[in-house]
Amino acid sequence: MTTTLSPVRTLNVEIWSDIACPWCYIGKRRFATALADFPHRDHVEVTWRSYELSPHTPVGPGRPEMDALAELKGIPRDRVRQMFTQVTAVAAGEGLAYDFDRALAVNTFAAHRLVHLARSTGGAELAERTLEALFSAHFEHGADLGDDETLVRLVSDAGLDADEVRASLAGDLGADAVRADEDEARALGVTGVPFFVVDRRIAVSGAQPADVFTQLLEAGWRDANPLQTLATADPDAAACVDDSCAI
Amino acid sequence: MTTTLSPVRTLNVEIWSDIACPWCYIGKRRFATALADFPHRDHVEVTWRSYELSPHTPVGPGRPEMDALAELKGIPRDRVRQMFTQVTAVAAGEGLAYDFDRALAVNTFAAHRLVHLARSTGGAELAERTLEALFSAHFEHGADLGDDETLVRLVSDAGLDADEVRASLAGDLGADAVRADEDEARALGVTGVPFFVVDRRIAVSGAQPADVFTQLLEAGWRDANPLQTLATADPDAAACVDDSCAI
Repeated sequence: MTTTLSPVRTLNVEIWSDIACPWCYIGKRRFATALADFPHRDHVEVTWRSYELSPHTPVGPGRPEMDALAELKGIPRDRVRQMFTQVTAVAAGEGLAYDFDRALAVNTFAAHRLVHLARSTGGAELAERTLEALFSAHFEHGADLGDDETLVRLVSDAGLDADEVRASLAGDLGADAVRADEDEARALGVTGVPFFVVDRRIAVSGAQPADVFTQLLEAGWRDANPLQTLATADPDAAACVDDSCAI
Repeated sequence: MTTTLSPVRTLNVEIWSDIACPWCYIGKRRFATALADFPHRDHVEVTWRSYELSPHTPVGPGRPEMDALAELKGIPRDRVRQMFTQVTAVAAGEGLAYDFDRALAVNTFAAHRLVHLARSTGGAELAERTLEALFSAHFEHGADLGDDETLVRLVSDAGLDADEVRASLAGDLGADAVRADEDEARALGVTGVPFFVVDRRIAVSGAQPADVFTQLLEAGWRDANPLQTLATADPDAAACVDDSCAI
């Protein structure tokens, strides 16, 4: 006798983030913590989606984050420094060594294009590795993501082909994919990042604690893979429904 | 800790079409292309609804489409031939081999009744298969859908019971259902077919490109199944909404 179960349904997790978003990198670490402990992690597909917090930042060389915030946003330098200290402490709690003394504010469109290039050439794994390299370079190592040759070096270290990257940067490969991600974010009502969506059904916003991401994965899993009753079981087999059961 | 999600809401797609409508068969193919790639296709129910473009065409044996158009509509034969060539080319692009040299103009009321008979005996799947058989027979194989025995053969090949089909044709089974579909089309303001409606809420008219049908499905899905926020998530978790986010 055979019993056919529905095949396991993979969870599709989409995460919108910006490379220039300090809470996105922290959220990435916390989500990774939850995913690493999730028993069905082999049936989870993660797609990193693009979102620009500051699409009007000029393309080209970066400028110090401190100057960008103080001069463009008019926030007092002392206050900016205080906030850097605070987010740096939270990042350190996730094993990240943020260095705002060196961090450079840039337009992130080109960097996002390269994450899409990575996905189209090497799938989700290469896309994740590329994004990770960009986040780390930006927040931990003061890399200028506004400089094409810096981008080429970083993402070719992550596994992309340097010539292909150069050609992509010179053209507009990936630009449509970045814009499509942003259009989808708008359609879903996303107003801030990081933003996590499971199966286009359940969402959480922000760098939540890891256990919230665990709950997100568990809720998505129950939804995608509800209990199936064994077809060969006797539906009338003896069971108790209340305390008169002994009868 | 538990999180309860609303159950997935199925999309109800209704498609009004006439079996004698060349753009309906083309639209059917294009919609099928979109549906096949739609990630939530298992939660889409399609109901084919009846519409007669020419209810006053005499019941009985068909006559060549060319003659019907040239003589009844007074369109010059050269112009008719030109139209046939054009729509045949578009159909070919969807893998359909239209053959207007053999196509026969008929009153389609009886054929529509059989699609309803198929639904009432075998559900949406049998209705679709029956409609598909009728479209193909009419446009690709010069079948005379005005001939009862031809109808019996076609739809019993599709899976209906031949005796039941004969009895239905002799009586008026399905006639009310066809008229109800046409009344609903009028109530919705449908003036041409094919006409696609999702959840009686979003409509598109015509044999649109497949990507428009994809957008229709996506819009309907977002509407029926909006993102649910995980109830246990911290609503104040840190997130970035603009470039002063480091703060």
